Amino acid sequence: MSKQTREKPRVAIVGGGFGGLAAAKALKHADAEVAIIDRDNHHLFQPLLYQVATAALSPGNIAAPIRKIVRRQANCEVIMASVTSVDLESQTILLEDEPYSYDYLVLATGAETNYFGNEAWAEHAPGMKTIDEAINVRARFLLAFEQAELEQDPDAQRAALTFAIVGAGPTGVETAGALAEIVESVRKDFRHIDTTTSRIILLDYADRILLAFDPKLSAEAQEQLESLGVTVMLRARVTQVDDKGLTAETPDGEIRIDANNVIWAAGVKATPIGGTLGVELDRAGRVMVGDDLTVPGHPNVFVVGDLAHRVDPKTGKPVPGVAQGALQMGHFAGKKIAEELRAASLGVPTPARGVFVYNDRGEMAIIGRNRAIAQIRKLRFAGYFAFLLWAFIHILFLIGFRRKLTVFTEWIWQYFFGTRGVRLITGRNRLPRPVKPPPDPRISPGRPRLPLAPPP
Amino acid sequence: MSKQTREKPRVAIVGGGFGGLAAAKALKHADAEVAIIDRDNHHLFQPLLYQVATAALSPGNIAAPIRKIVRRQANCEVIMASVTSVDLESQTILLEDEPYSYDYLVLATGAETNYFGNEAWAEHAPGMKTIDEAINVRARFLLAFEQAELEQDPDAQRAALTFAIVGAGPTGVETAGALAEIVESVRKDFRHIDTTTSRIILLDYADRILLAFDPKLSAEAQEQLESLGVTVMLRARVTQVDDKGLTAETPDGEIRIDANNVIWAAGVKATPIGGTLGVELDRAGRVMVGDDLTVPGHPNVFVVGDLAHRVDPKTGKPVPGVAQGALQMGHFAGKKIAEELRAASLGVPTPARGVFVYNDRGEMAIIGRNRAIAQIRKLRFAGYFAFLLWAFIHILFLIGFRRKLTVFTEWIWQYFFGTRGVRLITGRNRLPRPVKPPPDPRISPGRPRLPLAPPP
Repeated sequence: MSKQTREKPRVAIVGGGFGGLAAAKALKHADAEVAIIDRDNHHLFQPLLYQVATAALSPGNIAAPIRKIVRRQANCEVIMASVTSVDLESQTILLEDEPYSYDYLVLATGAETNYFGNEAWAEHAPGMKTIDEAINVRARFLLAFEQAELEQDPDAQRAALTFAIVGAGPTGVETAGALAEIVESVRKDFRHIDTTTSRIILLDYADRILLAFDPKLSAEAQEQLESLGVTVMLRARVTQVDDKGLTAETPDGEIRIDANNVIWAAGVKATPIGGTLGVELDRAGRVMVGDDLTVPGHPNVFVVGDLAHRVDPKTGKPVPGVAQGALQMGHFAGKKIAEELRAASLGVPTPARGVFVYNDRGEMAIIGRNRAIAQIRKLRFAGYFAFLLWAFIHILFLIGFRRKLTVFTEWIWQYFFGTRGVRLITGRNRLPRPVKPPPDPRISPGRPRLPLAPPP
Repeated sequence: MSKQTREKPRVAIVGGGFGGLAAAKALKHADAEVAIIDRDNHHLFQPLLYQVATAALSPGNIAAPIRKIVRRQANCEVIMASVTSVDLESQTILLEDEPYSYDYLVLATGAETNYFGNEAWAEHAPGMKTIDEAINVRARFLLAFEQAELEQDPDAQRAALTFAIVGAGPTGVETAGALAEIVESVRKDFRHIDTTTSRIILLDYADRILLAFDPKLSAEAQEQLESLGVTVMLRARVTQVDDKGLTAETPDGEIRIDANNVIWAAGVKATPIGGTLGVELDRAGRVMVGDDLTVPGHPNVFVVGDLAHRVDPKTGKPVPGVAQGALQMGHFAGKKIAEELRAASLGVPTPARGVFVYNDRGEMAIIGRNRAIAQIRKLRFAGYFAFLLWAFIHILFLIGFRRKLTVFTEWIWQYFFGTRGVRLITGRNRLPRPVKPPPDPRISPGRPRLPLAPPP
């Protein structure tokens, strides 16, 4: 940092997701020192993370270095560090354990997987919020087929080929649909199993899937899922998850699902930073913010995206935890700060903040090839056109032309050939030991060997 | 496995690299039960692994599921398992701890990083033989810049921006050249450091780089590296590697290089399976094979690729540990087995094995954009044409049209825009603690704050 910039007002943005980046962008022309602080070096396009978990895209296709995104914004720097707490009184945050002061703060750290108090389930039922988690889930999915191929015991083979997905929101639905397509596309790769006999079970406590959608579209999506071979279990409350599968209470009584793969897509909670503010939080740990998205009593502290609980005055409902919510909130915060900084530097009165109003542009969910649902304003549609629109919108919002191009190429390929490009098992994921190879009746000392060429 | 196939002769191929796949392919029409056994689910195109480590390509671009590659070869199955030992007498191998019998065996497990007895160095100086290792190296490279950006101490900053690469074979040279291009391309992403002041030091014990090449080409490659800013240190023997850097003995005495990043590309040794055969090995652990690539006294056991030590009768030198060596040896083994199986099934005399002769098609190494060297038969050339040829050949040999297409796209982009597409820090790689953020002279309780908008 050069000396001249030291005395400029500092805007600290914590989190380089949709909300944080939108705030930084809105501050592009501000005469300020803007810092985006993130524990990761990359912005993640979370709506497509399930495609990493289902071997369709590489992590690099949906993640971009935050530095690269803001390289041309001269007033913005990027600090790779974890923010551990906020002290509202002294206007400092702790990066690791070092204090860092701010004049304005935008908290945009987002959400993490919520096990609703059953944290021990995390080991057996991974969530999907980070690239590492998605790579881990991908390895587990692919290992399931490898294990089933070697397995001799029919029950163990059945458990290997059972995938239970808890939570029928967009992530759960999209993952279940993608899995159903995978078992079809890898069928010819295996010699001892038929992967299409896999059971893919989607469970939810609610009485329909995709609660954010119109009930008619939920029903449509469920039909699409079922046409792909997914079993949908509604009004099912998971009571136990262990290394062998899960137990759930259903209207028909308690059921047990033996499954090597349980995926947790049942909910999110706010990241813990909100708890260090000492202000009111909702049940999911989100910060209750005022009309201008600030913390009550601290007009220089904005909270945006999944970390914020903001009831929309129009609908009376909280702004949903989706990308467009975070984008709009981040933009609002950045714009208000920029306006005030400009007013202060011109010596004119500070403009009124106004009220944040969420502009719901609609929602979409994809189930599979040619299968999707969409509701936009008063429009409701499903099927091929929703699928095309989903693909178009997601490529449009991806950051960088290079990423748009490579994702487009991968999708076109997958659309026409059905195969997935990134079937990699990496990391510490290995088959559970012991794995039994195919039985070998030929192993006996007296067995005659084939005639072989004499040693040369 | 259906009952009918049980009594077919079984060919076990251990390793799904270039050698193993070539052997399997040559057995395509054999009336046999062919099994490729690999601990990983993917074939890795190792010549491009350094491009994963240097953020140019995604792992999925250079790795393909072995199952997918042989899906149409009905006589071939794939078993994902580690082979822990071979018992030549009983003609069995152990998959994990389960015995698995064979009629023919092709060992093609390749090589691993060789620390020449200093295994403790591995922690500080990672090698690059697997995807996980390459991802780890990538994260370390990228973290170096992140750390330097935050670092206040000039010595610590210098160490963060120092990259020492031990071993000036193709991997070391290619990595050093790629790093030199990275520091250029990320320069504008950082605010507090100039990444082009990074020191990239390539060390080797020999008196020239790229020993496999003509000395004139070595000199040419060294010039190309130096033009990119790489420091080449020859006749340097590394005597110590620790978490702060390395020590080396040079003709000018002992030198110390403080570097957060030390990469080990100094040599390979055979994978340990050869040691379980109880036959003669060379110093690098490779199996000494006969004219037909079999283990002496065991004409049904072939050893191919980096695991084999085969002296070429034409040149008197060992077949080099490169992809084309493994490909040719694997093809030879598979073809000989296929011929014998056909002869046996027809009841005709077993054909003579013949002698494996290595056909050296030439060698190439890339240093950077428009910079490469090539020697093909009697031709020697360097520069732009060598660069184009290198790119063409590597795309040609990549498996699958989809991979060819995506790698081609990434390279074209990089060629014209210079940027690298996969700058991701993932896994457990984090900045060393504690990281000091930029100093903040403004932190003092009495400091006046900016005028802020009144609470709404």
